[in-house]
Amino acid sequence: MQNKKRILIVGGVAGGASCAARLRRLCESCEIVLFDKGEHVSFANCGLPYFVGNVIKEEEKLLVAKPHVFNDRFNIQVHTQHEVTSIDRINKTISVTNLLDGVARTESYDALVLATGAKAIKPPLVGIDSPNIYSLRTIPDSRKLKAAAAKAKRAVIIGGGFIGLEMAENLAHLGLDVTIIEMATQVMPPLDTDMASYVKHCLENNNITLQLGQAVESFKQTENGLEVNYSNGHIETDMVLLAIGVLPESSLAQQAELQLSERAAIQVNAQMQTSDASIWAVGDVVEVQDLVTQQRFSLPLAGPANRQGRICAGAILQSFDPKLERNMRFKGVLGTAVCQIFDHTIAMTGASEKTLQRAGISDYQAIYLHPGNHVGYFPGAHPIHIKLIYAKADGKILGVQAFGHEGVARRVDVISMAMQLNGTVYDLEESELCYAPQFGAAKDPINMAGMIAGNNLRDDLPLADWTQLKSSDQQIIDVRSPAEFSTNHIEGAINIPLEEMRKRIGELSADKEVWLICGVGQRAYYAYRLLFQSGYKARILSGGMQTYQAKYQV
Amino acid sequence: MQNKKRILIVGGVAGGASCAARLRRLCESCEIVLFDKGEHVSFANCGLPYFVGNVIKEEEKLLVAKPHVFNDRFNIQVHTQHEVTSIDRINKTISVTNLLDGVARTESYDALVLATGAKAIKPPLVGIDSPNIYSLRTIPDSRKLKAAAAKAKRAVIIGGGFIGLEMAENLAHLGLDVTIIEMATQVMPPLDTDMASYVKHCLENNNITLQLGQAVESFKQTENGLEVNYSNGHIETDMVLLAIGVLPESSLAQQAELQLSERAAIQVNAQMQTSDASIWAVGDVVEVQDLVTQQRFSLPLAGPANRQGRICAGAILQSFDPKLERNMRFKGVLGTAVCQIFDHTIAMTGASEKTLQRAGISDYQAIYLHPGNHVGYFPGAHPIHIKLIYAKADGKILGVQAFGHEGVARRVDVISMAMQLNGTVYDLEESELCYAPQFGAAKDPINMAGMIAGNNLRDDLPLADWTQLKSSDQQIIDVRSPAEFSTNHIEGAINIPLEEMRKRIGELSADKEVWLICGVGQRAYYAYRLLFQSGYKARILSGGMQTYQAKYQV
Repeated sequence: MQNKKRILIVGGVAGGASCAARLRRLCESCEIVLFDKGEHVSFANCGLPYFVGNVIKEEEKLLVAKPHVFNDRFNIQVHTQHEVTSIDRINKTISVTNLLDGVARTESYDALVLATGAKAIKPPLVGIDSPNIYSLRTIPDSRKLKAAAAKAKRAVIIGGGFIGLEMAENLAHLGLDVTIIEMATQVMPPLDTDMASYVKHCLENNNITLQLGQAVESFKQTENGLEVNYSNGHIETDMVLLAIGVLPESSLAQQAELQLSERAAIQVNAQMQTSDASIWAVGDVVEVQDLVTQQRFSLPLAGPANRQGRICAGAILQSFDPKLERNMRFKGVLGTAVCQIFDHTIAMTGASEKTLQRAGISDYQAIYLHPGNHVGYFPGAHPIHIKLIYAKADGKILGVQAFGHEGVARRVDVISMAMQLNGTVYDLEESELCYAPQFGAAKDPINMAGMIAGNNLRDDLPLADWTQLKSSDQQIIDVRSPAEFSTNHIEGAINIPLEEMRKRIGELSADKEVWLICGVGQRAYYAYRLLFQSGYKARILSGGMQTYQAKYQV
Repeated sequence: MQNKKRILIVGGVAGGASCAARLRRLCESCEIVLFDKGEHVSFANCGLPYFVGNVIKEEEKLLVAKPHVFNDRFNIQVHTQHEVTSIDRINKTISVTNLLDGVARTESYDALVLATGAKAIKPPLVGIDSPNIYSLRTIPDSRKLKAAAAKAKRAVIIGGGFIGLEMAENLAHLGLDVTIIEMATQVMPPLDTDMASYVKHCLENNNITLQLGQAVESFKQTENGLEVNYSNGHIETDMVLLAIGVLPESSLAQQAELQLSERAAIQVNAQMQTSDASIWAVGDVVEVQDLVTQQRFSLPLAGPANRQGRICAGAILQSFDPKLERNMRFKGVLGTAVCQIFDHTIAMTGASEKTLQRAGISDYQAIYLHPGNHVGYFPGAHPIHIKLIYAKADGKILGVQAFGHEGVARRVDVISMAMQLNGTVYDLEESELCYAPQFGAAKDPINMAGMIAGNNLRDDLPLADWTQLKSSDQQIIDVRSPAEFSTNHIEGAINIPLEEMRKRIGELSADKEVWLICGVGQRAYYAYRLLFQSGYKARILSGGMQTYQAKYQV
């Protein structure tokens, strides 16, 4: 590089901080200056709910790297409490105001990185500015929430997504009565409804009150607290957390007339470059591509933000000096996500049925299974409830959702890696995973998922359509034991235990399709093989009664 | 199928039982008969050490499927305590003896499956048949061991592999003083020595006595027990467990002149068919291909045995009726394995350096890293010590070994899946894994491994050769803080903390290569980038002082 280049970064959390550090590693001579309007850079925003809940006890721990570390280790100038107010694209300068003294100045750049993140959605409801209504994006936010929780007995959380559920757990741990009000008819909207039902029951079992399908309409101060009015009722509380999601913090980009998406996210290419070749953007403020549906959207997650920061740094330096060849590309996201719900875990990657349907993709199959996280003969096994979605055409994996006590993130991570490499369900079938009695099974849940899906695609295991269960065109045969059948069963189902099927096969009507069900799907599969080879037309209700309960006893 | 086919299976644990059940699922009309010389079929042999250790309390739990289940559910005839003594390949019959009454009979087959497993190696040492010398392959073995342990205070385990270490833990839990004698100079021979050192320290911290590099020479009964004599000493004990490995139980195949490997494993094709087109073999008795080195060997693990059973079933039926198209292939093994060592886990997949060297593969690079299993700011983080090996030519992943408290199997599983799909370190760099503070980091250990390796391959992070550390051709610069340096450092290393490097760079000699070291490798990398861009020739000692200790303070 001939001249000393000057790179300004606006926003110093995940994406911005990663970008700054990587820039220095690749370019010792560049001048790197980072501005953040908040008090802190590089703080652990994913840890905030646990700081409020006192799981993380010291605020200090949330500061991953303090400004002096940036300076001492990386020779990066960090200016906190500095707000960048505008961009002059023609002269390549920004206006920045020191929030402590109100003094504004102009700074010039060779490259500018916007890592301005996202902001909590604050709907314009009556009473929204009442005291004791909080959101959670920054360390100061978390301090306020922690102080409020210390005095409160009751909390209402508006929004049942990741932050809402993590905060519900943490406030419950602090001893508060927690109610979640969610506009959707399920918690955790990225999940399909059937899988969300596990989360719902887990929350209820931990004394969280749920108001689903309820829109909050207004807030009113009362003698003893704050009244929250929603579609079908009202509740009095001591504090409210708004956790209905975030929007890209793109006002700076908007003012500078950079190309934005309909939902106001900054549009970037695979090198994280905006519509202005000298301006780059990373993190929650940008639009990314969904690797499964190819649709573009915003995904406020730390992992992709970090990767983007890293890619962006190389791309900026390559823009200065094309010989550098740092041509990494940000290909898109699978949307891998995980959330602890008390002693359970929900995790997902890729597309849900919902997402596929919204994207107009219909040639897929979903299967359900409920294997133990490890072999049943070793103490402490718990089921993992898995929904795997794959393309009917070629078995390509499209997504997975899993809920359980242990080993959930592990299985979702394996499938995430398989999806990243365009894997199919046949690859899951063949996978060779860690097995000892504490860790899994000779046929790991991943293998089981692959085998069920592979059998389905090989036409060895045809699946019934759960949504057609209530039609009367089939005979439902439950192949569990009479004792199991007597505890619960689908209305109209006939009980023929697997062990009796060979001799009682004559009881089946040859005219109607047989839909087989058992506890989790395994015995139904054995029964299917028997019926099929005896000339019957049969299908399996994937996931058995466990899935039935998730789908119909929500 | 025109005729009712008769399929005989010899051996009813993992591979044989899987094969039998799959055969029935695919063929309702076949006659399927399973023989096992033991008392049980389909038992949980991986659970035996934990049954001895009373972690699994009821013997009943070890019986995954009892003979009547095979009969009732699958219409499979099971004959336990029946030993198959010979095969007549020309007439397609076997001779089988009922061990209860000694009566022999002949059974004919259309297809024969050998799933005879492996047998514990019992070296011909003086005194090997003394009382209180045990091995562990079957439920009766485990009963004997459990009874012996109940009376014993001291145990000697010969062999420090998987079974040896699992049994060491279980016997220690029962309150015995345990000594492991291992011929290799390390425990867990499949690991590289540096990674085995973590296991060694963990065992020692849990009061297991290790005698490494010691060959057992003889046993002698004494007044108070049994004297075990080994290379450099002797020890008196109450009981001995032989856990020096297994050999294929291929005598039947040998007698029938099937093609065997040098090490007496049955040779099979990708459909698990032996050199006789009507005889098939699966499980510990067969030879498999190492997917990394392409070499053939035996691998006694349950996962591959189950998959082979499944593939074999389809292939047999296809051999009867080519229209079936059940053409699954067993491609080979990565050798994924895991072992709990008290409160730690060791896991691996793919090739070790040792394996590569034995196979004559030298164009590889090994890196070391020691990331937390989750972010440090969330309570309870513990390091995972990782060694990743990849091809220098293209970054293809060749193997990984990892040791830690939690999250070890998860990371090894992700890498196993990546390897299965021919993934490279660049794929690890890009992977999108579950992250919340309890579960990982925005840059997961997998991402970190990929980034270090990717940086190395992009020439951004040149690595020093640990084996050349003692040569005097370089200056070793330790970039940790003076406090860290004072606790331990490499002899001759000079301390220049990262934060002072920019101003003290003049202290470095420009003539000698600079080898940089820090705690785990991160600060050394930052220092490298600085030095490189200032014109110095430098390299990093991968994994820092943590790896130094693993390599040199064993």
